Amino acid sequence: MTKTPFSFDITGKEKNARAGVFHTPHGDIPTPVFAPVGTQATVKSLTPAQLAETGASLVLSNTYHLYLRPGADLVAEMGSLHEFMQWPQPMLTDSGGFQVFSLSDTRKIDEDGVTFKSHIDGSSHRFTPESSIKVQEQLGADIIMAFDECATPHDLEYNQRAVTRTHNWLKRCVAAKSREDQALFGIVQGGVFGDLRKASAEFVSSMDLPGTAIGGLSVGESKAEMHAMLDLLHPLLPADKPRYLMGVGSPEDLVNGVLRGVDIFDCVLPTRLARHQSAFTPTGRINLMNAGFARDKMPIDDTCNCYACQNFTRAYIRHLVVAKEMLASTLISIHNITFLINLMKNIRQAVMAGNFEQFASSFLQSYKTNRK
Amino acid sequence: MTKTPFSFDITGKEKNARAGVFHTPHGDIPTPVFAPVGTQATVKSLTPAQLAETGASLVLSNTYHLYLRPGADLVAEMGSLHEFMQWPQPMLTDSGGFQVFSLSDTRKIDEDGVTFKSHIDGSSHRFTPESSIKVQEQLGADIIMAFDECATPHDLEYNQRAVTRTHNWLKRCVAAKSREDQALFGIVQGGVFGDLRKASAEFVSSMDLPGTAIGGLSVGESKAEMHAMLDLLHPLLPADKPRYLMGVGSPEDLVNGVLRGVDIFDCVLPTRLARHQSAFTPTGRINLMNAGFARDKMPIDDTCNCYACQNFTRAYIRHLVVAKEMLASTLISIHNITFLINLMKNIRQAVMAGNFEQFASSFLQSYKTNRK
Repeated sequence: MTKTPFSFDITGKEKNARAGVFHTPHGDIPTPVFAPVGTQATVKSLTPAQLAETGASLVLSNTYHLYLRPGADLVAEMGSLHEFMQWPQPMLTDSGGFQVFSLSDTRKIDEDGVTFKSHIDGSSHRFTPESSIKVQEQLGADIIMAFDECATPHDLEYNQRAVTRTHNWLKRCVAAKSREDQALFGIVQGGVFGDLRKASAEFVSSMDLPGTAIGGLSVGESKAEMHAMLDLLHPLLPADKPRYLMGVGSPEDLVNGVLRGVDIFDCVLPTRLARHQSAFTPTGRINLMNAGFARDKMPIDDTCNCYACQNFTRAYIRHLVVAKEMLASTLISIHNITFLINLMKNIRQAVMAGNFEQFASSFLQSYKTNRK
Repeated sequence: MTKTPFSFDITGKEKNARAGVFHTPHGDIPTPVFAPVGTQATVKSLTPAQLAETGASLVLSNTYHLYLRPGADLVAEMGSLHEFMQWPQPMLTDSGGFQVFSLSDTRKIDEDGVTFKSHIDGSSHRFTPESSIKVQEQLGADIIMAFDECATPHDLEYNQRAVTRTHNWLKRCVAAKSREDQALFGIVQGGVFGDLRKASAEFVSSMDLPGTAIGGLSVGESKAEMHAMLDLLHPLLPADKPRYLMGVGSPEDLVNGVLRGVDIFDCVLPTRLARHQSAFTPTGRINLMNAGFARDKMPIDDTCNCYACQNFTRAYIRHLVVAKEMLASTLISIHNITFLINLMKNIRQAVMAGNFEQFASSFLQSYKTNRK
């Protein structure tokens, strides 16, 4: 077997929190890292140049969406996903599993795979562990994910079945994988059930993959349950491999995740909030539709170095929101992504300096969470 | 009277075509120039940084829209339109007249002004020559426009009334104007009627303003009629002042306009077409929705130096169009604006070099016009 182009250097530790660098064929990812999501091969409303300006390194794209449109064969014909969307830095694709279970209609799950109908045109399709790996190899991201089943978090029997299936499918994903320049991460499932999570962590760890993902969290369980699962998993996962908490990305979840040993996060939150005029600030979210901002000469966040905050007033952005101008989404997305990227940079620095616990407590105290 | 900060240097001539520089408080405008339109204080889907990259100098914004939303007093409170939208280069505002006549409901025109209802919320408003100038002084653009009445092009009696009113209103605009750092342009009306156009050109020229606009064209008349009016006006307008053909901006109209002595153009066309997936190329428009582009590795236009053409394939942009991603509008807008700006640069160079007639004939031969 060829030497893997992937390695993980841990450069700092403070209790369970870690700082490191994950090396990939498209460059280094300093961790902890937040990955913006480009569902359909574009981080919504941003050019890759604008995205690079936010300081993003790793970008995620969705296998389910790209498989359906424009098709993985087309992306492969264009060179790769990196080439197609012109993101030269590291990329990650998910397996399509989560979207098949959450977005598509009329699915049928069997031991071999999942039959589903496209949310776009109702056409019938089938994913198996083998086909998910094949599609992800056509897309060509640096990090690819095992095809798994994400159960509803509180259903014990469903989680037992899903964990068994996820483990069987992981073995098949490992066997199906043929490219040496992609790192396959296995996924730990098990809902909110400690025994299942433990068994899953042990099985996934035994596969000796270059990274470990934690799936099935932030899907309906409480924050306390999420934290309990992360605390339980911490000693069970390979310490020398990056840990990826899938689909999680609110500022408070990032801080709480790193406190519990997580290295990689992704979420659509910053761009989705932007399309609903909601922007991160150090004291919590603000909604730029609010009339109170109509004559506000401050930027969204006067501590922020992003293009939006360096150039535009809240008054202007509110005008764009009210006038339904596309530029509103672009500017708020630039800010929200930059906010999370800067938060991760500050977290990383704090872990390296050994004062992350203090940073976390101070951040969580001043940042007021908004629940929707 | 203070020395005007506005002057027009003609740097090249070829028959009726002119190349020059119009000096304004926010910088020089090399002419002939195409001005992109930022209707609501934003050129749709572009940041000012992206707009500057297209090579744009002059940008137009609409008094009617800004008066209604966010309000001219708010823009003034934010410093100026330049400050508000962060466009540091020259700006032009129209008078609101055209939109009052074309967009708003239930208008009543009298000799004093126009009462109209907002297209946004139906609220009642009134524009007079004095209030239009006041609003434009609050907005603070470098070039401001006289409040005029744009008649339907083929109605003689309506055009007679509109020309008389436009002239009376121009006198009132000149009297109302109080800022020395804004250049007021008068507007020649008269539909397709040579005698009316001639009378209007003489009257407007007699006001000795820093620039002359030609209104009421590209509003339903034929290309031949437009060209006939431009040819007729050419010897009648002050030769040493810039000439602005309002609301005109297709590639063929730009070439034909410069051939007939026009220096300044504006149009929503490049951004509006972009939102309908239509892109300029040297041989005519292409629609990027077309399935034929699905696997096309070429850029929109391989002779173009814009960000979209330097980085992305037609295949990728078609994917964005089909997937209804905002980035499609952004990339096509960047290209379409750059295409027109580059066309004007090439025209300017050709006029200076004395080979514009040849350039025009070659361009018009290879560029196939698409009529909708």
